[in-house]
Amino acid sequence: MRGVIMHGPGDVRVEERVDPRIQEPTDAVIKIVATCVCGSDLWPYRGADTPDQQLMGHEYVGVVEQIGAEVRTLRPGDHVVGSFVVSDNTCSICAAGYQSRCVNGIFVDGGIGTQAEYARIPYADGTLVATPGRPDEDMVPSLLAASDVLGTGWFAAVTSEAGPGRPVAVVGDGAVGLMAILAARQLGAETIIAMSRHGARQELAREFGATEIVEERGDDGVERVKELTDGLGAYSVIEAVGSQESMMQAIRSTRPGGRVGYVGVSHDVELPGAELFFGLVHLHGGPAPVRRFLPDLIQLIWDRKIDPGKVFDRTMPLAQAAEAYDAMDKRMAVKVLLQP
Amino acid sequence: MRGVIMHGPGDVRVEERVDPRIQEPTDAVIKIVATCVCGSDLWPYRGADTPDQQLMGHEYVGVVEQIGAEVRTLRPGDHVVGSFVVSDNTCSICAAGYQSRCVNGIFVDGGIGTQAEYARIPYADGTLVATPGRPDEDMVPSLLAASDVLGTGWFAAVTSEAGPGRPVAVVGDGAVGLMAILAARQLGAETIIAMSRHGARQELAREFGATEIVEERGDDGVERVKELTDGLGAYSVIEAVGSQESMMQAIRSTRPGGRVGYVGVSHDVELPGAELFFGLVHLHGGPAPVRRFLPDLIQLIWDRKIDPGKVFDRTMPLAQAAEAYDAMDKRMAVKVLLQP
Repeated sequence: MRGVIMHGPGDVRVEERVDPRIQEPTDAVIKIVATCVCGSDLWPYRGADTPDQQLMGHEYVGVVEQIGAEVRTLRPGDHVVGSFVVSDNTCSICAAGYQSRCVNGIFVDGGIGTQAEYARIPYADGTLVATPGRPDEDMVPSLLAASDVLGTGWFAAVTSEAGPGRPVAVVGDGAVGLMAILAARQLGAETIIAMSRHGARQELAREFGATEIVEERGDDGVERVKELTDGLGAYSVIEAVGSQESMMQAIRSTRPGGRVGYVGVSHDVELPGAELFFGLVHLHGGPAPVRRFLPDLIQLIWDRKIDPGKVFDRTMPLAQAAEAYDAMDKRMAVKVLLQP
Repeated sequence: MRGVIMHGPGDVRVEERVDPRIQEPTDAVIKIVATCVCGSDLWPYRGADTPDQQLMGHEYVGVVEQIGAEVRTLRPGDHVVGSFVVSDNTCSICAAGYQSRCVNGIFVDGGIGTQAEYARIPYADGTLVATPGRPDEDMVPSLLAASDVLGTGWFAAVTSEAGPGRPVAVVGDGAVGLMAILAARQLGAETIIAMSRHGARQELAREFGATEIVEERGDDGVERVKELTDGLGAYSVIEAVGSQESMMQAIRSTRPGGRVGYVGVSHDVELPGAELFFGLVHLHGGPAPVRRFLPDLIQLIWDRKIDPGKVFDRTMPLAQAAEAYDAMDKRMAVKVLLQP
């Protein structure tokens, strides 16, 4: 099969790899229907992380090809969405809703890889969720979004307690930030402040539910958020970048007692203890336990109550993966869907 | 009147000061019945903070002497307990339960000071809570504990969601850590791990409800906590020191999805973003909104359901404040009650 390998910063190639096959009785092999490039893939692409020469990709919609002898909830032919972390969904950490730290957890982009034609998914019952039937073609992007960016944005919105009467601010206008806006809106927030200085993304942000746009950054951005929230700061703040600047902007935009949900993969961040202490905000985040939310998100999409697939503004064949990375790196695309 | 001034590290003196009087119609002047030395007073005493030459102290039980024209809930003669931050208790931050960051908030030890014979308390209605009547002599230490260390430990236990079925670990065996143990027990936690290597404090910890003692620190301490919690780490972890080592010990002792409640005043702490991110723990803390809990805590004490006053192992006249500081600095006393 063909799959995407990153050889070094800026060097993405589609290469031939051995087809995956069942290895454990709890495995499934799926044929990838749609996959995509994640903002987190850009960290190694830009040289901030070291590429590991393994198959890239951790977002996927697929069709089950084969199942191991112990797989109970899936049959070949099922259309499935999975999360970016394999989980058994039975351990006590999973039971508490933290499948992204399952005691048997494996990051999909740490040796599995879904920017490919096929993938072997361990703990298939605990990782994959079947859709109610064969999805319409136009629904596939939304289901693909559920696999990571929607699930991640949703987690950030839930953990920051976005809801009625509680103003929300979102730091980061990438796909996850935009999905967090959609999530906050669904959860009932009325005031949603998108921090963005990019015209097309501002438009998408408004489409997903943003009611205010703040273009300023740093202290000025914080001041603008305070002006829009009775001088207090937002109650729910979502951080969807992962840099020192964005984390501090998020923390400082939060009112005392408010909540920061941070989901941007943290790079070179050091949080000053005294400022956190006197800020008196809640801080929670990390790799989103997407599996917790997948059944509900799939249903919302299936019922056409949400349309997160709009976050994909380009579609390309897998063979053009290099072009997809380049477009996202240059911010010419919010998110590129790849068709194997 | 006489009050305690810190002139420099290790230099505490009792000096004459002008008696406070009503300045604003929302003020009350109280006669201090009991006050004490706080672990946080030891930071400047040890030279880690700069003493500000103002009256020390922020914990207090008193009797109302005078009230301003707009004070509604108190009368001269009322016995009162107050928190260490003045709060109006009406702003939206107070309404959300974060009185320690009231928009009109003032730290009591930033210019008021209760290691003295009298104190002027601004926003008296929002800051002070009257006891149901004149407390018995033996109840005063417990009421004094409510003013800070009990309220702070309680906040840490609540915010870390201590309760039935959720193992608790407490980092720090000072008065706040000990009060957090009492709080966790009251909130229904069955497994409470006290991290302490000090015999007398271990004994007090067990008396307040600790079921396990861990003497190891750092990585070894974390390993011991994991051994005692099915390899997962505690769900609720309370940090009651404020150092880099204690914060990291707390964070690393917490299972994914678990909660760190940190109340040790943060000194030279820098939290590594990536470790926080992948740790997937909740982090919340800061100056405890003691006022939120005061009415309930006073009632629990009044009904003799809890006896937090046991945390005071020494009582001295205010005139011996220097000796009190010295005893706490050398860990010869857990907490010293001062009688003006």
